[in-house]
Amino acid sequence: MKHISELRQDIVTGDWVLVATGRARRPNEFAKHAVRGKPQPKKGCPFERLLPAAVLVYDRRGDNFRLTGKDKRYLEKNWWIQVVPNKYPAFGRGLCGIERRTGPYFWQDGVGFHDVVVSRDHNQPVASMSREEVAVILRAYRDRYLLLKDEDCIEYISIFYNHGREAGASIYHPHSQIIAAPVIPPDVSRSLRGSAEYFRKNKKCPHCVMLEFELKDKKRIIHMNKDFAAFCPFVPRQAFEIRIFPRRHQSRFEKVTESEIHSLAEVLQGALVRLERGLSDPAYNFFIHTAPTYGVGKEEYYHWHIEIIPKTSIWAGFEIGTGIEISTIAPETAAQFLRKIKV
Amino acid sequence: MKHISELRQDIVTGDWVLVATGRARRPNEFAKHAVRGKPQPKKGCPFERLLPAAVLVYDRRGDNFRLTGKDKRYLEKNWWIQVVPNKYPAFGRGLCGIERRTGPYFWQDGVGFHDVVVSRDHNQPVASMSREEVAVILRAYRDRYLLLKDEDCIEYISIFYNHGREAGASIYHPHSQIIAAPVIPPDVSRSLRGSAEYFRKNKKCPHCVMLEFELKDKKRIIHMNKDFAAFCPFVPRQAFEIRIFPRRHQSRFEKVTESEIHSLAEVLQGALVRLERGLSDPAYNFFIHTAPTYGVGKEEYYHWHIEIIPKTSIWAGFEIGTGIEISTIAPETAAQFLRKIKV
Repeated sequence: MKHISELRQDIVTGDWVLVATGRARRPNEFAKHAVRGKPQPKKGCPFERLLPAAVLVYDRRGDNFRLTGKDKRYLEKNWWIQVVPNKYPAFGRGLCGIERRTGPYFWQDGVGFHDVVVSRDHNQPVASMSREEVAVILRAYRDRYLLLKDEDCIEYISIFYNHGREAGASIYHPHSQIIAAPVIPPDVSRSLRGSAEYFRKNKKCPHCVMLEFELKDKKRIIHMNKDFAAFCPFVPRQAFEIRIFPRRHQSRFEKVTESEIHSLAEVLQGALVRLERGLSDPAYNFFIHTAPTYGVGKEEYYHWHIEIIPKTSIWAGFEIGTGIEISTIAPETAAQFLRKIKV
Repeated sequence: MKHISELRQDIVTGDWVLVATGRARRPNEFAKHAVRGKPQPKKGCPFERLLPAAVLVYDRRGDNFRLTGKDKRYLEKNWWIQVVPNKYPAFGRGLCGIERRTGPYFWQDGVGFHDVVVSRDHNQPVASMSREEVAVILRAYRDRYLLLKDEDCIEYISIFYNHGREAGASIYHPHSQIIAAPVIPPDVSRSLRGSAEYFRKNKKCPHCVMLEFELKDKKRIIHMNKDFAAFCPFVPRQAFEIRIFPRRHQSRFEKVTESEIHSLAEVLQGALVRLERGLSDPAYNFFIHTAPTYGVGKEEYYHWHIEIIPKTSIWAGFEIGTGIEISTIAPETAAQFLRKIKV
């Protein structure tokens, strides 16, 4: 008898997803949907050299520098990671906090910042870097976050990485992006509201409750160490989706410690290497969900984390029209498959 | 000076999108991102013949039939549109209304129906059909909707069409899908809640308010007749997105009249032909948003409509992580471009 599909509900947002395993594809069959795309040549790549506009630069020891005259020559030779304003920023200068109207509609200037975090090697994405380099990238995320969060008008800072053309990476050379925006994004608002509501009812952070269950149940865990756990969520938006949570309750990514950064580098890379080996280097996006830049109370109920969404299938008319995403593999099966991969 | 991007807020859901025209692409440059994919051969196509499982069949006069012994031979020759249960249904038989728990999580059986609406010609998608055929497809949507809505457990019926491989159409032969689900989808819940809230504050259906403004402002209108208007929404989720609204207030698609079906066929096809000619046959999804199958009150504040979402760009880490979609062309510019195309 065919297995009936499962409608699973997100206990934080109330959203539904469908786990429909009727077509019974084997885990490695998902690889063909997730193509990374062809490499682009090094020649002509805009990220091959230290850019004069860089606002933050790290050398191979992980020390950070502002790009001033004194260090410039040293850094041109020894840069490892650079943070540079995006040449085509989605958010930029403007007047903030001014609500404008057009007929019945509301809008405001897209005020904010849009940076790119560039690593040095053209051909080494996060999954193939040294552990130390991943740690420096995470440190760059945190350091730049701390500088941006006190800028005027900034309510939320989104940090994300697009791997492969199918995941929206228009430049092949590995790079992350940091966008500082003047509004709290809808997905984050919903998660905050849902977390607050759960906390009010149960006197517990819902993310801590889930994490505790996942560590006990073990079925969906794929990689962990003393500080972080990576698992396939019970309610996934995509087949092979992975989430990484800090094991101690913490609402803000920017409070990550030096020692936690090294733990996180290990778990993040562990998760990405499993995806790369298991699904033949798929395209994917990962991003950090964290509390808004200000606001009290959120410390109690929100819990920052990373979500990794591989392009294992296309969101078509049903998913786009309803917001109910369909996974054709159960997260338990996906986790078992990823857990077995040697890293 | 570079134009600052605009954060536009959906007055129904409160969601934000970003209109960021900084990169200044010309309208026809969007075509390259929206590939329909290669045709599949007719030979081996599962939709070339009348399927024995068909639950509703229309002949070339638009008359409908159940597939009983008497009419079978006539229909095998003369079928035009058939409604058939999906061979790999996302929703199917099970126990409904029973909430199950796994640790802190909730889930239920994915109970419901999943049908396919197949037109006869292997190579003619909705944009290329005769007006009469589009009308029969819309009639099939409505007739099947009316049969499904009284089935046990059904709370919402989603009708959608995937055009092209990049939009998730795994079978090339043109077909729509009808999914009857036991929950109200999150995107629809949010729209219902937002509409109710707007109605409470303003004593008006927000969709009627927008429609009235669009008809007066004219900037975003691309095609209209006495019953329906197609326009690029002020707050788009994708570049070149189009919405089609009935001009009279009506919350339920299934109440569409015979004469309105003909008007809708004209506007839907007009919108799709403009996309096809303007963007070189792009992949796209369209779907109907309508009120849930039951519930009072919604008649006042909800307004059914069709959304057409072309695959003009990839939702990457920022869009997936925040829910803020970025359009790199203003809907006003997109509408002007589409309006000028001869149909």
